[in-house]
Amino acid sequence: MDIASIIGVILALGLIVSAIVLGGASFGAFIDAPSMMVVVGGALAAVMISFPLKNFLGMFGTVKNVFLNKSESIPELIETIVSLAETARRDGLLALENRVGDIENPFIVMGIQMAVDGTRPEVIEDIMRTEVDAVATRHRNGKSVFDQLGRFAPAFGMIGTLMGLIIMLGDMDPETIGKGMAVALITTLYGAILANVFCLPFAEKLSFLSKQELLAMEITVRGIMAIQSGDNPRVIEQKLNTFVPPRLRAGAQEAA
Amino acid sequence: MDIASIIGVILALGLIVSAIVLGGASFGAFIDAPSMMVVVGGALAAVMISFPLKNFLGMFGTVKNVFLNKSESIPELIETIVSLAETARRDGLLALENRVGDIENPFIVMGIQMAVDGTRPEVIEDIMRTEVDAVATRHRNGKSVFDQLGRFAPAFGMIGTLMGLIIMLGDMDPETIGKGMAVALITTLYGAILANVFCLPFAEKLSFLSKQELLAMEITVRGIMAIQSGDNPRVIEQKLNTFVPPRLRAGAQEAA
Amino acid sequence: MDIASIIGVILALGLIVSAIVLGGASFGAFIDAPSMMVVVGGALAAVMISFPLKNFLGMFGTVKNVFLNKSESIPELIETIVSLAETARRDGLLALENRVGDIENPFIVMGIQMAVDGTRPEVIEDIMRTEVDAVATRHRNGKSVFDQLGRFAPAFGMIGTLMGLIIMLGDMDPETIGKGMAVALITTLYGAILANVFCLPFAEKLSFLSKQELLAMEITVRGIMAIQSGDNPRVIEQKLNTFVPPRLRAGAQEAA
Amino acid sequence: MDIASIIGVILALGLIVSAIVLGGASFGAFIDAPSMMVVVGGALAAVMISFPLKNFLGMFGTVKNVFLNKSESIPELIETIVSLAETARRDGLLALENRVGDIENPFIVMGIQMAVDGTRPEVIEDIMRTEVDAVATRHRNGKSVFDQLGRFAPAFGMIGTLMGLIIMLGDMDPETIGKGMAVALITTLYGAILANVFCLPFAEKLSFLSKQELLAMEITVRGIMAIQSGDNPRVIEQKLNTFVPPRLRAGAQEAA
Amino acid sequence: MDIASIIGVILALGLIVSAIVLGGASFGAFIDAPSMMVVVGGALAAVMISFPLKNFLGMFGTVKNVFLNKSESIPELIETIVSLAETARRDGLLALENRVGDIENPFIVMGIQMAVDGTRPEVIEDIMRTEVDAVATRHRNGKSVFDQLGRFAPAFGMIGTLMGLIIMLGDMDPETIGKGMAVALITTLYGAILANVFCLPFAEKLSFLSKQELLAMEITVRGIMAIQSGDNPRVIEQKLNTFVPPRLRAGAQEAA
Repeated sequence: MDIASIIGVILALGLIVSAIVLGGASFGAFIDAPSMMVVVGGALAAVMISFPLKNFLGMFGTVKNVFLNKSESIPELIETIVSLAETARRDGLLALENRVGDIENPFIVMGIQMAVDGTRPEVIEDIMRTEVDAVATRHRNGKSVFDQLGRFAPAFGMIGTLMGLIIMLGDMDPETIGKGMAVALITTLYGAILANVFCLPFAEKLSFLSKQELLAMEITVRGIMAIQSGDNPRVIEQKLNTFVPPRLRAGAQEAA
Repeated sequence: MDIASIIGVILALGLIVSAIVLGGASFGAFIDAPSMMVVVGGALAAVMISFPLKNFLGMFGTVKNVFLNKSESIPELIETIVSLAETARRDGLLALENRVGDIENPFIVMGIQMAVDGTRPEVIEDIMRTEVDAVATRHRNGKSVFDQLGRFAPAFGMIGTLMGLIIMLGDMDPETIGKGMAVALITTLYGAILANVFCLPFAEKLSFLSKQELLAMEITVRGIMAIQSGDNPRVIEQKLNTFVPPRLRAGAQEAA
Repeated sequence: MDIASIIGVILALGLIVSAIVLGGASFGAFIDAPSMMVVVGGALAAVMISFPLKNFLGMFGTVKNVFLNKSESIPELIETIVSLAETARRDGLLALENRVGDIENPFIVMGIQMAVDGTRPEVIEDIMRTEVDAVATRHRNGKSVFDQLGRFAPAFGMIGTLMGLIIMLGDMDPETIGKGMAVALITTLYGAILANVFCLPFAEKLSFLSKQELLAMEITVRGIMAIQSGDNPRVIEQKLNTFVPPRLRAGAQEAA
Repeated sequence: MDIASIIGVILALGLIVSAIVLGGASFGAFIDAPSMMVVVGGALAAVMISFPLKNFLGMFGTVKNVFLNKSESIPELIETIVSLAETARRDGLLALENRVGDIENPFIVMGIQMAVDGTRPEVIEDIMRTEVDAVATRHRNGKSVFDQLGRFAPAFGMIGTLMGLIIMLGDMDPETIGKGMAVALITTLYGAILANVFCLPFAEKLSFLSKQELLAMEITVRGIMAIQSGDNPRVIEQKLNTFVPPRLRAGAQEAA
Repeated sequence: MDIASIIGVILALGLIVSAIVLGGASFGAFIDAPSMMVVVGGALAAVMISFPLKNFLGMFGTVKNVFLNKSESIPELIETIVSLAETARRDGLLALENRVGDIENPFIVMGIQMAVDGTRPEVIEDIMRTEVDAVATRHRNGKSVFDQLGRFAPAFGMIGTLMGLIIMLGDMDPETIGKGMAVALITTLYGAILANVFCLPFAEKLSFLSKQELLAMEITVRGIMAIQSGDNPRVIEQKLNTFVPPRLRAGAQEAA
């Protein structure tokens, strides 16, 4: 649960709404269904053309990650790996099979399972790194959808405003010209809000989360390889700790 | 057949048309032949200056790819290569000649043919990698044409609007100034639609498809080299599978 | 204490204020609380969505660095390291323990402590380099927050102006239209000032300071490794001096 | 002779002219000498400041290349090199001296001459690669001039328009305000046309041609080195052909 | 003395001035001290915030380089190095000491001095390369100041225009609205001229000059190392000449 992102979205929308209220305007003047249709629908359509259907639909699941990510604690991860190494050292690699059930992280489970099955180390590493690459690609694709949406939203905002201006100018009536122009500008406003409150911050956040998750996976790969080669648990701990800045090693709980 | 891209184009154009209808405007106000000429013609002309004739004309074939690409299933590709490896292992490399007819993928056929002909491995790899590079270059050039078109379309939209404004301002008649301005803005609208509904999403999609096709070619090169060196089919399968994330290996059909 | 940054901020704001006064305008015309709220609040909210809470809050500490950085003198740093090397050479590595109290730079202290404790050289280097990487990442993240703020500030300026225009146009009264438009433009002004007087110059400065600090850390790592391996202090000095351009080596005080 | 670029320029200008005629405007309204002076002269002046005089003047020769380039046929080049290799194999390296006169490509001549003179292979390769780098730098500089011109042209278009607006607004006469504004906009139009019909497409084309020429030079270097080391002409052909995608090897004439 | 840059600046300013005169405007309409203050002062202030004081002040010296650079002739440089090599070969390394006084280039002097002093080759190379890196960094920083100034100038131009518009709109008097708007636009004009006539072309030129100077330094490093190792002067000449394209080797004087 990432409180900052939720507060941010609420704050941004709240500020926009209260500025409208403080400006003495009726809120209704800012709601226009066809404008919403052109901007949101158009930008989504452009993204749909840009990506295969699967990636486009994956976008909705990705939004959830922006808000619900639980960033794994790196020190806890190292602790888990070290404890597995101790079991392996004491009772042999096969003893790890009993511990697999307690571990939530599926990537560790996958690695341990292969080690228990006696898969050759090079193959384990190849397979784990392929999974890391696959996750990196999935993350990059996920971010890319929001980057594109953030690029197309203002473009369709401008397309909507141009259409509104052309309609208004084709039938210039001094009485209604102001209202016509106001409606025309609403699409640009929608495009700017869609891009700057949602798409671009989401893309930024996803890129940040991705770096964190890939670091955890890298540590896991190194840990599993070390367990399989029978390294001393203390040596493994020391090795993996080099990924954690010294300041954070003691107070392991709030590390990142 | 890529349903997402087709739906996307229809959706984007449909939204624009229905916003015009909902806005109570006559559709005719948005059609202007000289504007179309300046924007579409001008952007195409600029692209024509930017590339050799062959690349410019190739653009029209590339559009087809955006919609009709059948992304090759990576697991199916691996299956094919493994089955070829089994034949080679059982009946010798020459036996592959009989199987060439069944295989659609011309890149596999090319590799197998060279292996059957007894071409030296380094030469096979060199030739196959040159083909991979040539395909990558062709893809890059294809995408590049749409990138440029997406850059020149708004520029010629602006050129058209400036021309319209200069004509209108040179003969300022309060009666017609609105209509003149409406017509002037149409070119900017055309430029924005051409760029954001067609060119930029197409370029994005092409870059996505290219990455997929190049991965399949990379797997093929590795597979052919392994077959020629007489590797065990099981080992080949394991090696090539490291390109596929574990989650996708079982349910091979929908992978990619 | 970085006088240039402080003078720069005062100068920029002073010029803006005096231009208003010289323009004969009342200063009050440039103060509008809801506009401030939309631009500053909105941009901060967007940054809050883009980063984890910890990074967002770290921003306020980072501002202090822009103004209060004391860039370490590289020649002084080299002098310190050489003097430590002399102690180690004369009285042995353990004698360094007594000198740790006199050294302010915590990164040198950390390295010396590990050398005194007899940690293996590879481990010392690994741990020190991890700290360098961690500092580089922290710097990059710190800069990144200001980059984003500098991107979102003008965007929320435009959002505010669009909202102002829509309100104004919805109720077009020839008497107040000028004032309404003036208020609408204030948000764009706020966005431009926030980005160009604060965020973007701060990001630039942070990137400059980061390069300097990382160079000092690199020199420290090399120095500690050389001390531990028992190198001759003169050789260490010569080695580390290759990081300093010859012109600056003599007059060491104003170097860096 | 590159027909596409010539057609493109004629087409773009033709479309602009016919749009003016179709718009019912007098062509004279689009001609304004001082505007032309500010935009073309200003952009050229800015480019002149940006580069040494030699590079600035080289620009005019570079334009010729955009239109008159004859892209060398790679298969023909390989054929020439293979035929030289056959001569060298049959009659010795010195026999190549007689063939130098028949070869137009000065880069091959240079390489052959050095081989005949008994220059050491490393030196030949060093000297040829320096020439390749020098050509690459010259191409990059040539393209760079057009990139900058394409950046400065719209900037000076805007400068001209601002000047026109300031003149017009300083003496606001309802009768002539339209015409004044029309003239002001002409510079922006000129800047956009200069950038989008000439500079940017030319820069794009030059970058494309450069890649082609550098590939031919790379093949030549490899070929000369192989000839000097006395390789079998068949092996040389096979080696150089790996630069050509298989599809193009048979029908060598239209390759690229 | 770089005639192109001086002609360019005079030409650009001359064109702007004559366009004003041809436009029939009084030159005074384009001079506004507070506008100048906001744009030039504001952009300088923003740059001052972005860099340490030393780099900011260095800017004024850098401008001189844009105009007064004397690009060193590479062939002359090689000639000097070869002649030093001949002296060293004939009379021993120590004989070079007598020649140091005749050489203007301080970088050659530094290298020769170290060689004469018997400094070890690795150390000479390290120290010379550090100087090359320091020069590269100084150049990059110098260019960077102009890049930033070219980015902030239009931004402060826009800030000034927004302020002018807000003042004008707050007190809308049909009589003076034109003049108010004209004054408001002057800052944007100043920003565009500052960026496009000075900052951006200067940055471009500095980057060009930097590449040239770093090449000369690279050649010098190689030459000094070869002299110290006692290479044959002819071999040194041949080696260093590989940095010069063959076409330019004979007519050494106008090379670059």
